[in-house]
Amino acid sequence: MLAEIITIGDEILVGQTVDTNSNYMARELNLLGLQVHQITTVADDREHILHALADAQKRSDAVLITGGLGPTKDDITRSTLCEFFETRLINHEPTLKRIQDMFRAFGKEMMDVHYQQAMVPESCVPLENQKGTAPGMWFEHQGVIFVSMPGVPREMMGLMQQEVLPRLQKKFQTREIAHVTVMTQGMGESSIAERIEEWADQLSRDEIKLAYLPGTAMVKLRLSRYGNPGDQQIRELLNRKAKELMALLPSYAYSIGERSLPEVVGEMLRTRGETVATAESCTGGTIASLITSISGSSDYYPGSVVSYSNEVKVGTLGVSQVNLDTHGAVSKQVVEEMASGIRQMMNTTWGIATSGVAGPNGGTEEKPVGTVWIAVAGEEGVRSKVFRVGAERKSNIMRSALTALNFLRLEILRTPFGN
Amino acid sequence: MLAEIITIGDEILVGQTVDTNSNYMARELNLLGLQVHQITTVADDREHILHALADAQKRSDAVLITGGLGPTKDDITRSTLCEFFETRLINHEPTLKRIQDMFRAFGKEMMDVHYQQAMVPESCVPLENQKGTAPGMWFEHQGVIFVSMPGVPREMMGLMQQEVLPRLQKKFQTREIAHVTVMTQGMGESSIAERIEEWADQLSRDEIKLAYLPGTAMVKLRLSRYGNPGDQQIRELLNRKAKELMALLPSYAYSIGERSLPEVVGEMLRTRGETVATAESCTGGTIASLITSISGSSDYYPGSVVSYSNEVKVGTLGVSQVNLDTHGAVSKQVVEEMASGIRQMMNTTWGIATSGVAGPNGGTEEKPVGTVWIAVAGEEGVRSKVFRVGAERKSNIMRSALTALNFLRLEILRTPFGN
Repeated sequence: MLAEIITIGDEILVGQTVDTNSNYMARELNLLGLQVHQITTVADDREHILHALADAQKRSDAVLITGGLGPTKDDITRSTLCEFFETRLINHEPTLKRIQDMFRAFGKEMMDVHYQQAMVPESCVPLENQKGTAPGMWFEHQGVIFVSMPGVPREMMGLMQQEVLPRLQKKFQTREIAHVTVMTQGMGESSIAERIEEWADQLSRDEIKLAYLPGTAMVKLRLSRYGNPGDQQIRELLNRKAKELMALLPSYAYSIGERSLPEVVGEMLRTRGETVATAESCTGGTIASLITSISGSSDYYPGSVVSYSNEVKVGTLGVSQVNLDTHGAVSKQVVEEMASGIRQMMNTTWGIATSGVAGPNGGTEEKPVGTVWIAVAGEEGVRSKVFRVGAERKSNIMRSALTALNFLRLEILRTPFGN
Repeated sequence: MLAEIITIGDEILVGQTVDTNSNYMARELNLLGLQVHQITTVADDREHILHALADAQKRSDAVLITGGLGPTKDDITRSTLCEFFETRLINHEPTLKRIQDMFRAFGKEMMDVHYQQAMVPESCVPLENQKGTAPGMWFEHQGVIFVSMPGVPREMMGLMQQEVLPRLQKKFQTREIAHVTVMTQGMGESSIAERIEEWADQLSRDEIKLAYLPGTAMVKLRLSRYGNPGDQQIRELLNRKAKELMALLPSYAYSIGERSLPEVVGEMLRTRGETVATAESCTGGTIASLITSISGSSDYYPGSVVSYSNEVKVGTLGVSQVNLDTHGAVSKQVVEEMASGIRQMMNTTWGIATSGVAGPNGGTEEKPVGTVWIAVAGEEGVRSKVFRVGAERKSNIMRSALTALNFLRLEILRTPFGN
């Protein structure tokens, strides 16, 4: 079953508003097993709307339309819908009554524009909008379903959940689409593709699709497959495949299911009753802000020191001046002392430290921009690694911070629980 | 001049990704005086892409295409473009060389997929992508401009700024839109609108348009006006208006021209030869990460302490246990001790401290979620204020961090230079 979305609104075409409605509708339609194959945004313009509707009529089984309704809009959309569906506007009593009740409840005066909201095309089934005045409209036209909804997100979402999605599922007896996402950190999109190529080629046998969704220093891998609603076997198949994928990307894949790295690491620490503190140079507080972005992180995170200057590295973290002088701040020796230092200072199970060249300045032949030393100190001592991140400061910082969290995750995994 | 945007990508059609690219392109095209009258998202599918291109060809003077070019994408987009423009793929030496240099710089191995990135349609003008491997492509086909760009936002934005927008302006001789942006922090969009209503109503006399561009805890106010390229009088008019606007929003408007608050505060400190350190509780390192996001911040920022636990507040920052017990961590007394403590510890001109309830948990009747105490300590003593931010954790943290930086900015302003 093919679906398509039409958004009517100048505010999107002038770049004032990001079209999040289409994103929501696309996700919901896909989960219902309706494949969305086009999203179109057109101006509040009769000709343009008619062209988009006619085009969609040729291509799709269901067409969802948002925007162009609502009291402050001129009536182009509603009248153009009437023209396209060869019908006329009539007053819809139940809608009028609902609007009148709403205004009575708010103790407000109804204006003409609000009475107009009760006028709907005769050939449609009006859909009750519990969150606003303009009703949704359900049309069946030459075998294609058209649904028109207001553009206000919460009104559209309310109509989708209460009216549109149930009707579409009933109408098309749709198959459900099941998704499983595997989260990875530290490996690029193309390297992953190369690493899992053989395995990925086999997926088609099970009618499973694999999608790469890259972010900063992380890539989501989404496995999806169509099936009948609530088919347990498919869920199991996808979970099995997700586990295979995890095994193919050891030390990079960190979660089955959409979770952030700070969430996952936080969960591990909480379960083990352990704590962590951070000593950040090049990441300048970003690891701390990632950890504390998780509610409840105070249970396993007492705090950290951002030691941007060498004075703080020496004075607060106890890094030896000799090491700073001989090896420089961006070195194995210094980053390991920072990790051990913060662990002692905050009296935690774990200590993380970073020291690197975030750029754009400060690079040398020996230590170019993007060189980052990361250390993790634990009960069994301190380990460190040098990483090469990119050339762009902000993404370098985020990359280094996530890499450090993943480094900690791996150290936790290789350390027997409850030492 | 009519423009149109085509986004190619299943990730948008399945609702996994919000199409922010189109929003950015639409805004930039409108600023250039090109009216965007349709935005279309289609699947990675030959027929579908061909149809969208042919449709756009009929309607528009310029068509911007993004997506479908990354290394793991099959080559449908590139080959379909060749088919539509009746041309063939050839190897583009300069692009290949640039990609090879990139990989050499990162010390990474090039894979086949990366060599393919250097293959471009013969009839296009390749546009240099300074942020990634896939080049942009500029086509002129039957009097219509088509531009194809990768879907990665920062790559697309780079290409737009450095290549596409200048070429479009030259090609269509569009009237330039001059604009000046005033940056504000700490005041909501509607409160600003109310405060400056009278002044804003006068703008139309000078044919000036005012746009509100809200972000997290900050609102950009953009003044724009059409004119001939390089018309000096218009720039002066806009700058005069921007200064009026600054005067109407004292303590909220912090910059004429697009600059971030950490940038502006950093500049002030640098000019005065002063330094700052931060002691963060509820903001958990976010102020530090904002300050250090600016290259060169080490000149005025030695570091900070994230004191999430009370032990660290007492042990490291020297907050008195008595104050913690009597007034609690979220209090005037404690936040002021934190600010003075970090200032002494790091031996800086200024100290900033935050302590609040970021939520979603931890709120009380007396101190509900969103209550944040912020203190700034300087040579003339310490001052603090309580702020009420929102209910959502992540935006509360960012809101508090930016509010703290703006608080520091105001303290710097009221302190005579060179004490």
